Amino acid sequence: MKTEMNVPNLYQVKNFLLSLQDHLCKQLEQLDGQSTFLEDCWQREEGGGGRSCVLTEGKVFEKAGVNFSHISGASMPASATAHRPELAGRSYQAMGVSLVIHPINPYVPTSHANVRFFIAEKEGKPPVWWFGGGFDLTPYYGFEEDAIHWHTVAKNLCQPFGDDVYPKYKKWCDDYFFIKHRNEPRGIGGLFYDDLNTPDFDTCFNFTQAVGNGFLSAYLPIVERRKDIIWGDRERQFQLYRRSRYVEFNLVWDRGTLFGLQSGGRTESILMSMPPLVRWEYGYSPEINSPESKLYTSFLIKKDWV
Amino acid sequence: MKTEMNVPNLYQVKNFLLSLQDHLCKQLEQLDGQSTFLEDCWQREEGGGGRSCVLTEGKVFEKAGVNFSHISGASMPASATAHRPELAGRSYQAMGVSLVIHPINPYVPTSHANVRFFIAEKEGKPPVWWFGGGFDLTPYYGFEEDAIHWHTVAKNLCQPFGDDVYPKYKKWCDDYFFIKHRNEPRGIGGLFYDDLNTPDFDTCFNFTQAVGNGFLSAYLPIVERRKDIIWGDRERQFQLYRRSRYVEFNLVWDRGTLFGLQSGGRTESILMSMPPLVRWEYGYSPEINSPESKLYTSFLIKKDWV
Repeated sequence: MKTEMNVPNLYQVKNFLLSLQDHLCKQLEQLDGQSTFLEDCWQREEGGGGRSCVLTEGKVFEKAGVNFSHISGASMPASATAHRPELAGRSYQAMGVSLVIHPINPYVPTSHANVRFFIAEKEGKPPVWWFGGGFDLTPYYGFEEDAIHWHTVAKNLCQPFGDDVYPKYKKWCDDYFFIKHRNEPRGIGGLFYDDLNTPDFDTCFNFTQAVGNGFLSAYLPIVERRKDIIWGDRERQFQLYRRSRYVEFNLVWDRGTLFGLQSGGRTESILMSMPPLVRWEYGYSPEINSPESKLYTSFLIKKDWV
Repeated sequence: MKTEMNVPNLYQVKNFLLSLQDHLCKQLEQLDGQSTFLEDCWQREEGGGGRSCVLTEGKVFEKAGVNFSHISGASMPASATAHRPELAGRSYQAMGVSLVIHPINPYVPTSHANVRFFIAEKEGKPPVWWFGGGFDLTPYYGFEEDAIHWHTVAKNLCQPFGDDVYPKYKKWCDDYFFIKHRNEPRGIGGLFYDDLNTPDFDTCFNFTQAVGNGFLSAYLPIVERRKDIIWGDRERQFQLYRRSRYVEFNLVWDRGTLFGLQSGGRTESILMSMPPLVRWEYGYSPEINSPESKLYTSFLIKKDWV
């Protein structure tokens, strides 16, 4: 395994993650122009802790959460070693930044980004480590040019790492963010990767930095373009309704959320991803040929945007 | 096993369930006095179907769903035979009524009730069957007399079936409706039972009828007593916030919901239990000594109410 020949630099990764969190918060605050992030530092009894930053009641963002955590444990949790039995009994560290943004204006899509690093160690053995991450977009009212822009940024940041990187992680994203019980994608996708440890630490780390740093280039122009579109109760009701899909995905299918909640993670930080206000309606379906139905027919489909 | 000596009467059970659904809907409509139930009949490709009844925008009830389903399959689902390998490969039928009520007035508690019957058959073998069910109450603002009334009805309906029935099913309810990632009960409990097949079919069926019929005696007087209490934005906001706990329990922990969603059940009927409007707020905790904090300190605790 290639991993055994690399010495990962945890200090470097942590430093990047903390700077990334700062940078994300600053840029989002600047765009919002009204509200600021509140910072919550917390510790975890079993080891490690984090810094949760949340902005609420902004001018542009109804709720934005940017969470950093660095946790450690003396022994890998059972759920994490089920498909990697060779790691059982190892000590571990997991660190990452994850972000979810719920804008006010229904014409601005919700977005999610995450980068993470995991390392499992055992005395006398080489460490096993990997990176994961990605970002994806969940529009309420779709715009083709936004979808193309989003995926172009994703593709371009992947390009230096190989021609196959974007198609592979684009597909992984489509597969992962799929709401099986609705037979419906969560949004228009983006990038998703996990278990990344080849060809070497530096390349994986560089790629993860490119993903983390690329997010704002993908998202902010879309926010700028859509944040001042006039909207009314109709759009708001549809946005609140569609947010329930987000809740359903995160609580029923998202492995990270479920693992966190079931393994004693910090609930408030994990559920920072929940929308501020959500609506369920029995048997709703959009009027044929309405702007709402266009979301389903033209955006919530598997499609190559670039 | 006792079950092998009894011949369950499916027709009788189904008849009871359909009448129960009708009765529940009628009584709830009458109390609401404004809105009526809409009926949706549906069929399931793999076998069976159901009747979903939902009332929305009532005067008293913001949303009430009463669902009947009777589904069948040629072979028990893997998830259902994991802990009962002797049933693998059997054909099965499952039928039940389940109900969730989300009132408008935050002083009226949310409530849930369910009765169900399951039978697994194989040619040349006696059928294996069992009943399950119960009801539980989720107040936003607690009233001791309501909690006592609720549990008194529960206890009294159990009494004819033995002294140990109420304590056993009351505890089972407390254990089941517990939100582990919040370390918090969903509400003040009630009754919960499953795998009931002793001493014989008639007794189990009688008990299940007592539970189904008992629900309204437990719930309606509480609704009557609280539905006209004046409330404002403060109470509404707390209610919306607390409803997020209901969503979290149902989507993360409730076996019935998860089994349904993951096994291709009818999503809209399963998620009829979702509240119409829900709020999440990062890091909320009620003011000390406020009416909101009393919910946590005096009601969301394990307690013998009668």
